[in-house]
Amino acid sequence: MTGHRSNVEELLARLTKGDRNALSKAITLVESRLPAQRETARSLIKQVTDPDFRTRRIAISGAPGVGKSTFIESLGLYLIDKGHKPAILTIDPSSHFSGGSILGDRTRMEELSKRDEAYIRQSPSSQYLGGVSRRTRESIFLCEAAGYDTILVETVGVGQSEYLAADLTDIFVLLVQPGSGDELQGVKKGVMEMADILVVTKADGPLEKVAQQSRRELRNAVHILQSKSHGFPREVCSVSARENRGLDNFWKLVSNFLKKITDKGYLQAERHNQKAIWLTDVVDELWLELLKNNDEIQSLIKTSSEAVKNNDIHVYDAAFEIMSRRLRNL
Amino acid sequence: MTGHRSNVEELLARLTKGDRNALSKAITLVESRLPAQRETARSLIKQVTDPDFRTRRIAISGAPGVGKSTFIESLGLYLIDKGHKPAILTIDPSSHFSGGSILGDRTRMEELSKRDEAYIRQSPSSQYLGGVSRRTRESIFLCEAAGYDTILVETVGVGQSEYLAADLTDIFVLLVQPGSGDELQGVKKGVMEMADILVVTKADGPLEKVAQQSRRELRNAVHILQSKSHGFPREVCSVSARENRGLDNFWKLVSNFLKKITDKGYLQAERHNQKAIWLTDVVDELWLELLKNNDEIQSLIKTSSEAVKNNDIHVYDAAFEIMSRRLRNL
Repeated sequence: MTGHRSNVEELLARLTKGDRNALSKAITLVESRLPAQRETARSLIKQVTDPDFRTRRIAISGAPGVGKSTFIESLGLYLIDKGHKPAILTIDPSSHFSGGSILGDRTRMEELSKRDEAYIRQSPSSQYLGGVSRRTRESIFLCEAAGYDTILVETVGVGQSEYLAADLTDIFVLLVQPGSGDELQGVKKGVMEMADILVVTKADGPLEKVAQQSRRELRNAVHILQSKSHGFPREVCSVSARENRGLDNFWKLVSNFLKKITDKGYLQAERHNQKAIWLTDVVDELWLELLKNNDEIQSLIKTSSEAVKNNDIHVYDAAFEIMSRRLRNL
Repeated sequence: MTGHRSNVEELLARLTKGDRNALSKAITLVESRLPAQRETARSLIKQVTDPDFRTRRIAISGAPGVGKSTFIESLGLYLIDKGHKPAILTIDPSSHFSGGSILGDRTRMEELSKRDEAYIRQSPSSQYLGGVSRRTRESIFLCEAAGYDTILVETVGVGQSEYLAADLTDIFVLLVQPGSGDELQGVKKGVMEMADILVVTKADGPLEKVAQQSRRELRNAVHILQSKSHGFPREVCSVSARENRGLDNFWKLVSNFLKKITDKGYLQAERHNQKAIWLTDVVDELWLELLKNNDEIQSLIKTSSEAVKNNDIHVYDAAFEIMSRRLRNL
């Protein structure tokens, strides 16, 4: 116990001084599934929760191929130029089997990853939260405690992971591929309705004209979308990450939006609401830990699995049996 | 209790005669979150679990815009022509806010939805399983009990939902957009390694040449992927859903694959393994129900949420308090 405590204190001291290794170690600790590490992780997180409202938490979403990595790298470098310290939390959707893309492994965000002012953390997605890592929330707190002021949360899904990311951030940015008609059809209304800012990517070279056209179409289209609870209109812009154009305008839109919701008190209220969501997540998690951190139950689950596979017992009956056994030995 | 029982029996009798309304009603029952309906749902599912191994369960995945709906509609019509009865389980990723695509609501699978031989069920995705509906597994059983022999499970995500779909099906089909180099980069290796068959879509008109090129590139690329546990090589083909070309070849690949895994006993073994996964899902679900189906806990969660929002108590402390209260009043 004392050992835990002093380890946590030491890690925290290094982390709050901006030590990147300490930050990485802290995130690894928090992501650990070892029961023994959970208590340590929780006592660490308790000390870094919600330091203030001066940080920016930005969700960046978009379908595969839309150019998320390129956009985030350019944005990260842009932010460093402006004196910010960006932290990028991304998920590696490929890590369930083995890493990387099929046609040669391109290093992601190569230039940004060399900069001391930025921190990039790629977490495995083979977790239960569908895209967003199960510890993205805690990782945000840790990055902020380490002095990063702008947290970019990348999501790769086209559904559930976006809702989860929205519950962790202040602003939702959706990247859209240049295209029109049928291609824009691919962008679902529901995901678009989550967006505060829509960005048409790849506005350069042969796609520049299409990108401008898409931007106009989207500007018309966003009016028919349901308003977000804060009531501010959605902004649409276009960006060429390759030619470094449009980032200034994009960042102005982000800053204006964040200023508006902060001035109205929405940002603070939303972060408070997010804590209530966190509470229900933690309650579920602790309750499931209580079920499973028990040797008798672990071995019963194993034997029941075999029985179920052999059709000796129905899944429901086996499940009820496991539950009542756990209740008896609580 | 007797009421439940006779309702279930009646619903089951209609369902097994192939009554589509009964099937829809049964899926709605199973998807219900009302505690009162869960017992009824479970007693229904107990009677339709895993009837035999003659059905085909096919996961169909691919990024947005790849042409999943068009492909599935063509495949469905093709299967009807061959004397099959397809059931299509899709998810509506847009339903969290409001339905449809942004640029006008295209009716999905219009022609197929008019056919008596096919059943199409679109479930909301705003559930905890990230893309695949939380009751897709049970819906598969119900469709099979209603006489549908080929179940197509569409997934829209690019991560977690694919892993979930793979745990519910016998074969995994990945649709890939025609393209090359950078565009194929967008298809993550991990998702590709899940695939048993890769299908290049839109192999017609201006994209036909690109599609053939992509098919060749993918054929070379799949060799570097990690083998699946059954050890059979991945097949690559191309399809024009619009011009109805390539479906014959695609279906031959599917049938050959399913024959091979059935002959070797892998299909049966895999379905048995899937039951063990189902067991752990049900155990978690029952255990969480036990926590929450309690008025005192419900109201404690509500007051704790407020306390957490006001920073009166830390999330972890509130969560531990809720848990110990539940343990005391078990």
